Amino acid sequence: MRFIHEPSPIAKGMSKSMDYASSGVDIELEGQAVASLISSLGKSTRKTGTFGAPVPVPGGFGGLIEFGEYYLALATDGVGSKLQIASAMNHFESVGIDCMAMNVNDLLCVGAEPIAFVDYVAVPKPDPEFHKQLGASLAEACRLANVTLAGGETASLPDIVNEVDVSGTALGYVRQGEQITGEHIQSDDVLIGLASDGIHSNGFSLVRAVMSEKGFDYGDAIPFERHHHGNPCTSFGDVYLIPTKIYCDPIVQLLESTHAEYGFNRGDIHGLCHVTGGGLTNLLRLHSSYGWVIDTPLAVHPEFDWIQEQGGITDWEMYRTFNMGMGMVLVVSKSASMAVLEWLQERGTTAQIVGRVHDDGKHVTHLPTGSTYDTY
Amino acid sequence: MRFIHEPSPIAKGMSKSMDYASSGVDIELEGQAVASLISSLGKSTRKTGTFGAPVPVPGGFGGLIEFGEYYLALATDGVGSKLQIASAMNHFESVGIDCMAMNVNDLLCVGAEPIAFVDYVAVPKPDPEFHKQLGASLAEACRLANVTLAGGETASLPDIVNEVDVSGTALGYVRQGEQITGEHIQSDDVLIGLASDGIHSNGFSLVRAVMSEKGFDYGDAIPFERHHHGNPCTSFGDVYLIPTKIYCDPIVQLLESTHAEYGFNRGDIHGLCHVTGGGLTNLLRLHSSYGWVIDTPLAVHPEFDWIQEQGGITDWEMYRTFNMGMGMVLVVSKSASMAVLEWLQERGTTAQIVGRVHDDGKHVTHLPTGSTYDTY
Repeated sequence: MRFIHEPSPIAKGMSKSMDYASSGVDIELEGQAVASLISSLGKSTRKTGTFGAPVPVPGGFGGLIEFGEYYLALATDGVGSKLQIASAMNHFESVGIDCMAMNVNDLLCVGAEPIAFVDYVAVPKPDPEFHKQLGASLAEACRLANVTLAGGETASLPDIVNEVDVSGTALGYVRQGEQITGEHIQSDDVLIGLASDGIHSNGFSLVRAVMSEKGFDYGDAIPFERHHHGNPCTSFGDVYLIPTKIYCDPIVQLLESTHAEYGFNRGDIHGLCHVTGGGLTNLLRLHSSYGWVIDTPLAVHPEFDWIQEQGGITDWEMYRTFNMGMGMVLVVSKSASMAVLEWLQERGTTAQIVGRVHDDGKHVTHLPTGSTYDTY
Repeated sequence: MRFIHEPSPIAKGMSKSMDYASSGVDIELEGQAVASLISSLGKSTRKTGTFGAPVPVPGGFGGLIEFGEYYLALATDGVGSKLQIASAMNHFESVGIDCMAMNVNDLLCVGAEPIAFVDYVAVPKPDPEFHKQLGASLAEACRLANVTLAGGETASLPDIVNEVDVSGTALGYVRQGEQITGEHIQSDDVLIGLASDGIHSNGFSLVRAVMSEKGFDYGDAIPFERHHHGNPCTSFGDVYLIPTKIYCDPIVQLLESTHAEYGFNRGDIHGLCHVTGGGLTNLLRLHSSYGWVIDTPLAVHPEFDWIQEQGGITDWEMYRTFNMGMGMVLVVSKSASMAVLEWLQERGTTAQIVGRVHDDGKHVTHLPTGSTYDTY
């Protein structure tokens, strides 16, 4: 990754500024590895016009394939190093929700409605208590996402994994012609941000590096106030394990064809962006040339401020690593934006207009901090 | 697991008889863990008659969900401890095929045609050379299974995994009413066995235990003759890493509605069994009451004989751990069995009639060794 403009590091109370790369994730090597995998893949043997033929979609949130008058979409992802905090706390009641969210939120970005899910769990040793918690968590996740758990696999791999690894695959569908590709995005479209519930499932290598560097345990009491769904969090572990928000409600209903009584329809939703690893740079996946300005961001959860301060992390690094309070962004036609916002807020969704699209170069600018990004 | 009749251990040249449980896999604990996960799951929120509603299928090879006039099927599985041999040999050119095969072969068992696949790879550290080999292997797997690679995820999890873990999810479909559930199986149906290519992807904990116990390395020359696709294998690693056979060709074509010129149709195929972990006991998943006799088994690959001899493993243990030369079993109406066999053989498939179904109790009997099983 490279950048146009990086503000001076804001070293709040420590001399060494931490970043995602120094926390142990070699982004460049990962990019090379994925590139060498992709270069080995050829074209599909499934021909256009038949079941299973690939449908090119820019951005790559979810892979679409043909299925008669529909497209089917698959997304696969895991919970990543957040699992290590769950293991350290021996608390797995949110892990299934994290796994579900990472996948179904990606499907929503192509306009697909998630309908089914399968989980894959690799464990060093089977543990009925872990599986009970995971099962409860997957059941809750299926309810929240309105999907059927269509299968799953638990593999005991004592010599391959040290701790549990949890991943999954979600299946969704969208009627042909209704997929969201970003092609209708235009200059002056409005960005509506949907609040996140916390750190979700990205950036945990950096979180763990900060905790370790500063000598904190996950069970330690937090030095800030934090509630989740009305319940107070007491420890860092409590805060970090707040599950990733599943956006199926409200987005599936938002994408239903008509909301005439509110004055907008599905066609007014030009793009959706799941803010995952890469933070705001994910917006760059939505269009090949447009730029993005965030001028009035959603509130930042206090754990982000605390991590930034402890790690002496720059604003620039924070907004390209974490969701910073915004887990999903809708790109909406300007004329419909107030109507969409009203619809969302009436459903109890924490959302606000956070910025706009422009045609003045392909980069993302976070105005309050002056951070700018031109590479995902 | 329990058993009706276990023949005396055949200790060929060593006093200690090895089995799958003693090789480090605690089957009972695994069963408890999976049971506690399943007990935590509730009913789907997707109602019968809508997209995504679950469709009950006995046996559980692949999970079906409703999708208009079709059912969609998902299967998820990993390569398991065979990966450790790939890692030891630093040879990953078959891993993608193993991963594909484990999933698409399961889909075939419910009568579904696989159309798409996604892979999930967890690595301690990204390695472009590994990813290149994996990519080539997945490309070949997609070609063999005639599916589209619709996505994938590579997770760098240095503190969770010691070695690479590779899993995947396959998507298939079947027209409603054409799913294969085993409900049409009847007494005197004929079992047609399809040859395996080798050990495939199950039983490797036991293989590894035998190799370690007897002090062999994977690079050591094999003391028996073995070819794969006409090429000679030289080392144990060569033999063990022979990829799992993908049965899409011929089974997808076999399940096309009519083969009038051969005198059978899709309705004559009453069941399909992917012989995975559990060996012959997998047959017990196909029906709630019928029994199974194997009287004329397919040829056993020499590596199975060698492992059995070195480990002093009983026949009973071998046939409930490995595929023993037969990777897939078709349950076919008696009247159509010769026609189906002829069709398979004309396509170059190594297949033979290996036994039959009976109504004399729910157990599997392997006549040549006298091994009997009543529990999957």
